[in-house]
Amino acid sequence: MSPPQGQASRVAPVIPRGMQDFEPARARARQELVAVASRVYERYGFQPLATSAIEHWEVLVGSAGPEAHQQIFAVASPEQDELGLRFDLTVPLSRYVAANQQQLPRPFRRYQVAPVWRLDKPGPGRFREFLQCDADIVGTTSAVADAEVVAALRDVFAELLPADASGPRFRVRMSDRRLLDALLRLARLDPSVGPAVLRVVDKLDRVGLAKVEAELTGGYEDESGDTIEGLGLDRESVAVVLDFLALRDQRGRTRDAVLEDVGRFLSGAEGGAEACAMVAAFSGHLASLGVTDAEACIDVSIARGLAYYTGPVFEVELRGAEAMGSVGSGGRYDDLVGRFSAQAWPGVGVSLGVDRLLAALEQVGNSESTVPVGPSVLVTVLDRERLPEYFALARELRVAGVSTDLWCGTARSFAKQVRHGDRLGVRVAVIAGGDELSRDTVTLKDMGPPEAGAESREEWLAARHGQREIPRGSLVAEIRRMLESP
Amino acid sequence: MSPPQGQASRVAPVIPRGMQDFEPARARARQELVAVASRVYERYGFQPLATSAIEHWEVLVGSAGPEAHQQIFAVASPEQDELGLRFDLTVPLSRYVAANQQQLPRPFRRYQVAPVWRLDKPGPGRFREFLQCDADIVGTTSAVADAEVVAALRDVFAELLPADASGPRFRVRMSDRRLLDALLRLARLDPSVGPAVLRVVDKLDRVGLAKVEAELTGGYEDESGDTIEGLGLDRESVAVVLDFLALRDQRGRTRDAVLEDVGRFLSGAEGGAEACAMVAAFSGHLASLGVTDAEACIDVSIARGLAYYTGPVFEVELRGAEAMGSVGSGGRYDDLVGRFSAQAWPGVGVSLGVDRLLAALEQVGNSESTVPVGPSVLVTVLDRERLPEYFALARELRVAGVSTDLWCGTARSFAKQVRHGDRLGVRVAVIAGGDELSRDTVTLKDMGPPEAGAESREEWLAARHGQREIPRGSLVAEIRRMLESP
Repeated sequence: MSPPQGQASRVAPVIPRGMQDFEPARARARQELVAVASRVYERYGFQPLATSAIEHWEVLVGSAGPEAHQQIFAVASPEQDELGLRFDLTVPLSRYVAANQQQLPRPFRRYQVAPVWRLDKPGPGRFREFLQCDADIVGTTSAVADAEVVAALRDVFAELLPADASGPRFRVRMSDRRLLDALLRLARLDPSVGPAVLRVVDKLDRVGLAKVEAELTGGYEDESGDTIEGLGLDRESVAVVLDFLALRDQRGRTRDAVLEDVGRFLSGAEGGAEACAMVAAFSGHLASLGVTDAEACIDVSIARGLAYYTGPVFEVELRGAEAMGSVGSGGRYDDLVGRFSAQAWPGVGVSLGVDRLLAALEQVGNSESTVPVGPSVLVTVLDRERLPEYFALARELRVAGVSTDLWCGTARSFAKQVRHGDRLGVRVAVIAGGDELSRDTVTLKDMGPPEAGAESREEWLAARHGQREIPRGSLVAEIRRMLESP
Repeated sequence: MSPPQGQASRVAPVIPRGMQDFEPARARARQELVAVASRVYERYGFQPLATSAIEHWEVLVGSAGPEAHQQIFAVASPEQDELGLRFDLTVPLSRYVAANQQQLPRPFRRYQVAPVWRLDKPGPGRFREFLQCDADIVGTTSAVADAEVVAALRDVFAELLPADASGPRFRVRMSDRRLLDALLRLARLDPSVGPAVLRVVDKLDRVGLAKVEAELTGGYEDESGDTIEGLGLDRESVAVVLDFLALRDQRGRTRDAVLEDVGRFLSGAEGGAEACAMVAAFSGHLASLGVTDAEACIDVSIARGLAYYTGPVFEVELRGAEAMGSVGSGGRYDDLVGRFSAQAWPGVGVSLGVDRLLAALEQVGNSESTVPVGPSVLVTVLDRERLPEYFALARELRVAGVSTDLWCGTARSFAKQVRHGDRLGVRVAVIAGGDELSRDTVTLKDMGPPEAGAESREEWLAARHGQREIPRGSLVAEIRRMLESP
């Protein structure tokens, strides 16, 4: 009904900057990762929640520091409301909790899997839309909640990446804002410079100790010639901070041993002993939940950039993909809901960046999907007069739960159909010509694993390799057997 | 670290107009519906695909008629690109197919579950963000593909809403644009008025035959006093259209019988016989796929408003929720990819509006979730000195796959903890005081179903009803047994 369109009126099929599509194999990998995380979160009693993608601008800004609003996609509305796309799932949770606090159980455990959007500069591996998978417990200050969240995080990674002979293949690195507060007091630094110091310390993994020192003092010029301004702190204070950071690399030592050193270091600081005691209690809870020292360590250099954290902070890295940085992180925040409500709903949560985590899993060679992406079986159509019988074959397999494609292209060539099935990755092609159907049999072609030999895959497919004629009545049983064999 | 905030600086925790949150029970219902549809789509060989939420404005507009652009949320970008949020999943699929056609199997079956956004006027049950669940086969004109899509749709509804004594509880109503084209010729109407006539016919269910007649001729004034302009068609043409529409209500008759009437009616129209033959072939394919006459009927009043349909069109309604209109729909479109590419990728697809479907399922009383929303077990904390043992109990249950909450609030009151568990809907509370733990036992409280009696639920919870002391070692086995009993 629409007029034919000429070349001139064609639109370029281009995706916007910073956006990406997930073709079936990657979409499947994402689905599976989300399924693992959701299953673990549910096991810990987290309930699903879904909030809207669009929020009022003033709900979004302000909660995550002044830089955040530059990251928000603005959305136009006919009512001229100022709107934006969410940039995380924590702020919408806070809005939801503030609006519904009378109806919520307290503590409230929820998880949410949803895309978020940020106006970051796009680049390789840096996108503007990404899927997050968060779990939070709000409405309690208890260290039990902190431990529950970290244990759930551990379970997610232990399922995604089972340990090998050298132990766990991930590591949760943990510190606590209260340790860092004690450090600032010990270093006689004004609390007002605290957030700036934390932001610098947070860069340690990426830039190294020398540049952290430079940025805490007089600043430096980076490789690209840009000037990194220093905070201008005095030498003695900076020396204390650097000595503290020297406690960070403690591979192979237990959380208790590291905490003992940290306690000794902070013993002169007001609140230092109390902070250490709180972290020790948290660490003990983790041990009771079976979280080993190899799975979760104390690393005092973990600071997390965001201003809103007030207690434990943590990040996860994968062995062999440390350079990719954190693939999951979180911490305790005690003030977020306070932006909206007089009632305090302190919380603790974790956030998985699904797309970055997938990239990291690919890097460590563990991104293979266990669920096939495409159908298991292709029913070919050799004789269009026999279509009712092909439909019946497909239906029988589907009723039995076997994912089945029925050839629905216009080409009639058998070779083309089998090549199509190969491309879809099917394991079995069902071949039934008039001869077979009148004998009440069908032929099954085992499409894989590919056989070695001089032939090309194409020749192999076209030949009668791996083919077997079976009684029509044993179709489902035979195919099940083939799908279960390796 | 953030300064304390006074009343004055508080932000109202308000969701934007037309948006909604899904609290855990509704989020769970949505998850389950999506799981059913995805499972069925996979069984038919559809592969998952995920495209970006944001598209170039020019990709979005134009494909779905001139009104569409008023429905699109505009999004600002720092590069000044004109962007918008997708309003359906078909246009992004077309863009994806055009951009990746060299790499795609042909035919290509994909499904996608994702939110879309439309600037409709919000109202009760009308939202601006909603979840869609689409399946399409592109790259073929075959009626086999049409039948596969409708059969998958049937399977989704048969799983969501199993038949009762009076038969299926849903009905797929189908027609075909080629029948309607033949009708236009029979009525001697110019093809250029075709789209307008279809839009009017599409309203039949909502406004009735008299108003359709009025709108096809001189127009009328509706209840609110607004003038509905008429198309000004001549009486004879309109009489033919109305006679044709009289063939629509054919409850209880087979597709073949209705098609025979339609064929007789259109026998004088150019292309009428061919169109009927194509619909009959499609209907025959459906029968081979086990789609009964009660599940899918021919209803010549189904027109679908969108201009891009070119073959079969269909809608699903639920018995008992007919007034809610279509809860799933689709059809064949042969030109969509042509906006982007010289290559034709004709397709056929179906779209489920998940949120509207949930509302309709609620209306017919079938929205009960089969999966509990919250955890099955709450481990209470009676003695904080014994925390390691409570953690161990929770861990044991979780390792066994039992969804378990561990009390992590700050309150120590036992009554409060049990009330919390009741609110979460747990089936079992694990109670272990120092006495029990030193005897190497725990007490299990069966929290439901609630007992009748004079007591309030609160009193019942606080008393020792349903409690049983069991050996610590049989925790998992006992709880499994309780969870499996009704």
